[in-house]
Amino acid sequence: MTETPNPSPDKPNTDIYERRESIVRSYSRAIPREFDKAQDVWMYDEQGGRYLDFLAGCSSLNYGHNHPVMKKALLEYIERDGVAHAMDLHTKAKNEFLEAYEEIILKPRNMDHRVMFTGPTGTNAVEAAIKLARKVTERSQIIAFTNGFHGMTLGALAATGNVKKRAGAGVSLGDVSHEPYDGYFGPDVDTAEQLDHRLSDPSSGLDKPAAIILETVQGEGGLNACSDEWLRKIADIAKKHGALLIVDDIQAGCGRMGSYFSFEESGINPDIITQAKSLSGYGLPFAVALIKPELDIWSPAEHNGTFRGNNHAFVTATAAFKEFWTNDKLVNDVKRRDKIMKDRLEAIAQKHGLETRGRGMMRGVAMENGELAGAVTQKCFERGLIIETSGADSEVVKILVALVIDDENLKTGLDIIEESVDEVLGGPVKVAAE
Amino acid sequence: MTETPNPSPDKPNTDIYERRESIVRSYSRAIPREFDKAQDVWMYDEQGGRYLDFLAGCSSLNYGHNHPVMKKALLEYIERDGVAHAMDLHTKAKNEFLEAYEEIILKPRNMDHRVMFTGPTGTNAVEAAIKLARKVTERSQIIAFTNGFHGMTLGALAATGNVKKRAGAGVSLGDVSHEPYDGYFGPDVDTAEQLDHRLSDPSSGLDKPAAIILETVQGEGGLNACSDEWLRKIADIAKKHGALLIVDDIQAGCGRMGSYFSFEESGINPDIITQAKSLSGYGLPFAVALIKPELDIWSPAEHNGTFRGNNHAFVTATAAFKEFWTNDKLVNDVKRRDKIMKDRLEAIAQKHGLETRGRGMMRGVAMENGELAGAVTQKCFERGLIIETSGADSEVVKILVALVIDDENLKTGLDIIEESVDEVLGGPVKVAAE
Amino acid sequence: MTETPNPSPDKPNTDIYERRESIVRSYSRAIPREFDKAQDVWMYDEQGGRYLDFLAGCSSLNYGHNHPVMKKALLEYIERDGVAHAMDLHTKAKNEFLEAYEEIILKPRNMDHRVMFTGPTGTNAVEAAIKLARKVTERSQIIAFTNGFHGMTLGALAATGNVKKRAGAGVSLGDVSHEPYDGYFGPDVDTAEQLDHRLSDPSSGLDKPAAIILETVQGEGGLNACSDEWLRKIADIAKKHGALLIVDDIQAGCGRMGSYFSFEESGINPDIITQAKSLSGYGLPFAVALIKPELDIWSPAEHNGTFRGNNHAFVTATAAFKEFWTNDKLVNDVKRRDKIMKDRLEAIAQKHGLETRGRGMMRGVAMENGELAGAVTQKCFERGLIIETSGADSEVVKILVALVIDDENLKTGLDIIEESVDEVLGGPVKVAAE
Amino acid sequence: MTETPNPSPDKPNTDIYERRESIVRSYSRAIPREFDKAQDVWMYDEQGGRYLDFLAGCSSLNYGHNHPVMKKALLEYIERDGVAHAMDLHTKAKNEFLEAYEEIILKPRNMDHRVMFTGPTGTNAVEAAIKLARKVTERSQIIAFTNGFHGMTLGALAATGNVKKRAGAGVSLGDVSHEPYDGYFGPDVDTAEQLDHRLSDPSSGLDKPAAIILETVQGEGGLNACSDEWLRKIADIAKKHGALLIVDDIQAGCGRMGSYFSFEESGINPDIITQAKSLSGYGLPFAVALIKPELDIWSPAEHNGTFRGNNHAFVTATAAFKEFWTNDKLVNDVKRRDKIMKDRLEAIAQKHGLETRGRGMMRGVAMENGELAGAVTQKCFERGLIIETSGADSEVVKILVALVIDDENLKTGLDIIEESVDEVLGGPVKVAAE
Repeated sequence: MTETPNPSPDKPNTDIYERRESIVRSYSRAIPREFDKAQDVWMYDEQGGRYLDFLAGCSSLNYGHNHPVMKKALLEYIERDGVAHAMDLHTKAKNEFLEAYEEIILKPRNMDHRVMFTGPTGTNAVEAAIKLARKVTERSQIIAFTNGFHGMTLGALAATGNVKKRAGAGVSLGDVSHEPYDGYFGPDVDTAEQLDHRLSDPSSGLDKPAAIILETVQGEGGLNACSDEWLRKIADIAKKHGALLIVDDIQAGCGRMGSYFSFEESGINPDIITQAKSLSGYGLPFAVALIKPELDIWSPAEHNGTFRGNNHAFVTATAAFKEFWTNDKLVNDVKRRDKIMKDRLEAIAQKHGLETRGRGMMRGVAMENGELAGAVTQKCFERGLIIETSGADSEVVKILVALVIDDENLKTGLDIIEESVDEVLGGPVKVAAE
Repeated sequence: MTETPNPSPDKPNTDIYERRESIVRSYSRAIPREFDKAQDVWMYDEQGGRYLDFLAGCSSLNYGHNHPVMKKALLEYIERDGVAHAMDLHTKAKNEFLEAYEEIILKPRNMDHRVMFTGPTGTNAVEAAIKLARKVTERSQIIAFTNGFHGMTLGALAATGNVKKRAGAGVSLGDVSHEPYDGYFGPDVDTAEQLDHRLSDPSSGLDKPAAIILETVQGEGGLNACSDEWLRKIADIAKKHGALLIVDDIQAGCGRMGSYFSFEESGINPDIITQAKSLSGYGLPFAVALIKPELDIWSPAEHNGTFRGNNHAFVTATAAFKEFWTNDKLVNDVKRRDKIMKDRLEAIAQKHGLETRGRGMMRGVAMENGELAGAVTQKCFERGLIIETSGADSEVVKILVALVIDDENLKTGLDIIEESVDEVLGGPVKVAAE
Repeated sequence: MTETPNPSPDKPNTDIYERRESIVRSYSRAIPREFDKAQDVWMYDEQGGRYLDFLAGCSSLNYGHNHPVMKKALLEYIERDGVAHAMDLHTKAKNEFLEAYEEIILKPRNMDHRVMFTGPTGTNAVEAAIKLARKVTERSQIIAFTNGFHGMTLGALAATGNVKKRAGAGVSLGDVSHEPYDGYFGPDVDTAEQLDHRLSDPSSGLDKPAAIILETVQGEGGLNACSDEWLRKIADIAKKHGALLIVDDIQAGCGRMGSYFSFEESGINPDIITQAKSLSGYGLPFAVALIKPELDIWSPAEHNGTFRGNNHAFVTATAAFKEFWTNDKLVNDVKRRDKIMKDRLEAIAQKHGLETRGRGMMRGVAMENGELAGAVTQKCFERGLIIETSGADSEVVKILVALVIDDENLKTGLDIIEESVDEVLGGPVKVAAE
Repeated sequence: MTETPNPSPDKPNTDIYERRESIVRSYSRAIPREFDKAQDVWMYDEQGGRYLDFLAGCSSLNYGHNHPVMKKALLEYIERDGVAHAMDLHTKAKNEFLEAYEEIILKPRNMDHRVMFTGPTGTNAVEAAIKLARKVTERSQIIAFTNGFHGMTLGALAATGNVKKRAGAGVSLGDVSHEPYDGYFGPDVDTAEQLDHRLSDPSSGLDKPAAIILETVQGEGGLNACSDEWLRKIADIAKKHGALLIVDDIQAGCGRMGSYFSFEESGINPDIITQAKSLSGYGLPFAVALIKPELDIWSPAEHNGTFRGNNHAFVTATAAFKEFWTNDKLVNDVKRRDKIMKDRLEAIAQKHGLETRGRGMMRGVAMENGELAGAVTQKCFERGLIIETSGADSEVVKILVALVIDDENLKTGLDIIEESVDEVLGGPVKVAAE
């Protein structure tokens, strides 16, 4: 669907939220509309407003909103009373999910990982991964990285860098050391080498880790992307020091880098991979940890939870695998769209002396500070573009659009971004979308 | 639907699970069938097997499988491209959920709590509750109880008693003290008084807690039910010592005790209430923490997560509120069915010199040990009844049937339980269901 | 030396302390004199004041101040340039200490423990004991008891009950659970049985402990004494659950109960015993942990420290062993003095409706609250008696006089206590000591 | 005393140690003699052996063994029954210590710190410093450095880098982050700047610290010396980020760098300074924390301990202040001896292609590995020189000789070191001392 954004002029009545929703809510503050329907990259409110979605559920909607193929499969499943909830019992829907995952995703990539249904949120998957790493290695320390984001429950939060999130814990967050990510001290400092140096020194005070956990592109941390070389070094360091390598592929995976997993190009084979967000293909709560079989040493039910088996999500995920990962179309589309984004963002950046960030279809422009970036996204929203910021100071205008976006829609959104940056920074202002 | 159970004779092919699902899976071990469809209290496999479900998603299916009212609402919502995923943006579905929650549930109970969407699993809600209590009180210690179960992520796991679950952490679980639950040392020891004694003693070594967290009936811990008097004492103790009272109502709430919240009869007004499981009414992942407004001191996004806004669940939950909580039918049904269960279980227990456990429609029979309880549930399953155990040693045969079960079906299930207990303990064996 | 107390009337100039000593100082606040010399149970200030010492360095001066036998040995050693400091190198003084300890103390009691020089403070010894227990058992949890006091460094502080001490940590104190001591809930509650119940329950949430650490009489905690039966039960519980039993004998040991170790009468054989305070016999810093040889699994230098080998203390301790523990005189003296104290304190208590506390020569009277107890010790001090309080609320007037006190001096002190209690509580006032 | 070393040929009988001393002992393994007397830089065994002491109690004997001035003061004090032990009561000996400390040490340096008697070991002082920093700042995190050594009790151990020491804890050591020390990644990496970068980044995951604790020369960590510039930067970083600066001056202080405190030349004014080792001047257990008065927010007795007031140590420390710090003699002697050591060690290093380490009279030669360094110290010992190693791999031959050593004795020791290095590395071998 190629359309033009057309935002509603006024805020809806939000009394019910003021009265009854916790003030912890966030996105609705910068995007004060009430959405009703959504399709592909478009969201609609009841006032007839139409919004181009460059947030995509923070990468949970890689195939767009309510994709017709998954929608059809889900409707049929519900219609015929397919099991919706069954704890971790075997269901036909789970069987078909596992078969499809094996055939379409794992086998072609020579991966023998097992699938752990960890509870349907990313933080559930990260917690399971960390617990398993500690259990396997009988060590407690986890190495995470500066600007990393892994979740809000206590174990995952300890591995998250952001001070505002950490402040919510109310206790000190232990057993995790946050090490400098690739490029953290600039291009001349090899942070992998520094990490290896410290882990190799028996008096460094940095305890041998159970695991090293990382994102290949840091979604919340400002779209910092590590190089394949650095990633391979980290994989080697993990192995050398007896630690597991956990790739948290929740935001950067599921095709956002072109390949299904974000790390495929680097050639590494992580011990544990966490997935959530776009895994279901429909924005439904669903998460897994992929575990090398020799590390799958859980006792039955040692990590459990009520919603491990979200059968609706099994159905849509299976449909998504079949639709998008049995041929090269999406991969090629992503490559092309990635280039469109990259070129355009670099042009915008160059015009204003800014820097671009990110990789694949997870890119952005770093403004001087969070205030300016917020002003840009605000201007975008006024033009009907839903877009958010990222980074320690929320200074990066971040594009996380659906991978399936039509090229024209992509360009429309990029136009709006350029206009908004121009407006905020005083550059040449084009006509706003209407 | 009144039917008779009719289990399939053979295990299905489970190769795919052996190959690709983590060995952490559990329920599928004792219940080795692969389910396809489900309706009301019945589950069906592809071999034509028909099973009476007395597990009900561990209390996630209080209104039965795929209830037609919620099903209809969900199908319509999906059909018309209602927003499925929108992070925590305002949506019409959320608006309607909050309105219904306020009008139907909170206002009539004089509760002014706010709703925090915590991520859609029980453990997400518990983590949020614990974090907030620590933030509010600037204390770290949490008081939990023996045999309590609150989840698998690090913060919630620390509050969980079971040693097998705790072993999965791989680190020591701090900042929680597990105190004896009501009746833990028998009827003559007032454990609330003992707790107050220790908290009042400045040299007891039990630090002043941020919160006291409890279940009114311990679902995983063996169906131990606390008395209303003890509950009121604990509420007073929390207040006296400056701690928040968190009622984890995930398993015992949503009508299972007759009233919507499990604690209503006691008259207490908890500071924070966690809900999940049956909240959505359809078995969809959904959880909230209810927070007294004066405690809602979060910063925006201080606790966030991708799937906080499960709009499908908003839709089914809203429909469930309207269907079941705007009149007294369910409450009365539960009372009657509770009595049927209670009387029958007491008869079974008396016959064999056993003890019953639980309260409301969350009841069971305590066998001498887990082996015998497992034998009983195995015999039940052979008769087509899906039922599980609970307790430290899995020694309690636990009934968590849907609240909406037809009385005939309830009796069918109770018959099977009686026959199975008889068979295991050598009592008079009736003809098995066929 | 039988003398009469004769306190100086005025406070000395304390400007230097105000200017230069941390406000953390404590005893000097209630006892505002500046002492110069001391002998036996007497302390002297420069103004000619003479004070009867019923504090005895909190049980560090069991043989009195500057006992002539140890004094002579120490003077000779220093005079002849005996090694004062040698890290943990072998010295003749250490050799002689170990030989004497083996022959006089350990062998006659059939104890095969090894001596670990842990650093010369009680808290050093407790830290070493706890570390070793964790290392041996590969568990982290320590069971300590309500009102227990074990030291101020982080590991020992976690095992200490007093909230004021704990507040100094600035971090949450983990890996220790504080369980009710003998009699904590009154005479009818068997706290050992309750502990066993919880440790035997796999869902109690009380993790299997590395060690159970206790004092047989709680010096700082209010002179609570456990029964021999309870002590034996705890020893059995430790064994049953795979935990080490650590007796912290720092305050109650070295003869204060009559026997050299405080627990001898009970017949238990602790895995680890900590000693400090009166071990040197002269008030010099000195501490050890006694370790059963099969538990002595340290790596060399795994726990080290500069002052492990206080050779001056080796010399005085050796002299003290030879003087006091090669015959029954002290044991018999303690028995007799214990009875004098006990009878007199019970009479005082009876007169005023109070309770006595303690056992051996570690006894006291519990006043209604700390304010009254402080008033009593203040009145005692005005009469020339140095005495302190103990307990959660500092409510116990505590006698920790030297074991070697002449019976007449003992009676003088008891007279003063009685007069002071009478004065504070309005009883018959005798003429004050002058 | 200028003498020549003359080691006894044979090991003494060590049966008593094998039977009764914990295997945790360490120095006695490489130096298997039993010492009886000591004077100045000489130690004597009963077999007539005479050893030149280049270990000096790991810097606890900066004024040599049993210095006659302090010896005389101590003998007189003991002889006249000066109070040996008085908890933290005021004593004349403490008064005189505080007066001397103020007049001789603090005032001339414009320091207004207060003295906290923390318990008489270095680790007691470090624990007190860390606790206070956490209390003052209400933060938990401590920044320590790679290769730092601060003690063996749980709080100090967490700040210690060495993996063998850390292994003794048996629990994970939390709330401390170990950052790269000056020069850790070579001369081109400014580790202070890297630290500032991470502390300034709100998403680095490095929580704002309560304190930064450091040694100016790392005694156990391999004699790494930080530059004055780096030290000033760290002091600025602490201030900038609201953290206290703790200088652990236990090993490098008390004149070893020439000045009384090791950091004087840099011009910084630490918030807290810990002292122990040579503070007493006689090798007696004694430690303090110096605290800026505005940070002295302890409650009375919040950190206490039995041996805070080691009056014997007050006496010898006071005598040492008067003897050594009221004129420039020692300062000048140290400068000259430092130069002798430096020149000679550099010559040795140059001859063999080795590196020197350290600063002031705390210097050494880094061998290729610990095995070679151990071989050198073994050869030294065979020549009658007591000397030890340091560093992560024990690879540095470390000189910690008394500051008062006669130049001739110093040269004798340096000769032995050179001969031993030559012997081990195959250089020209001189005639061994006999």
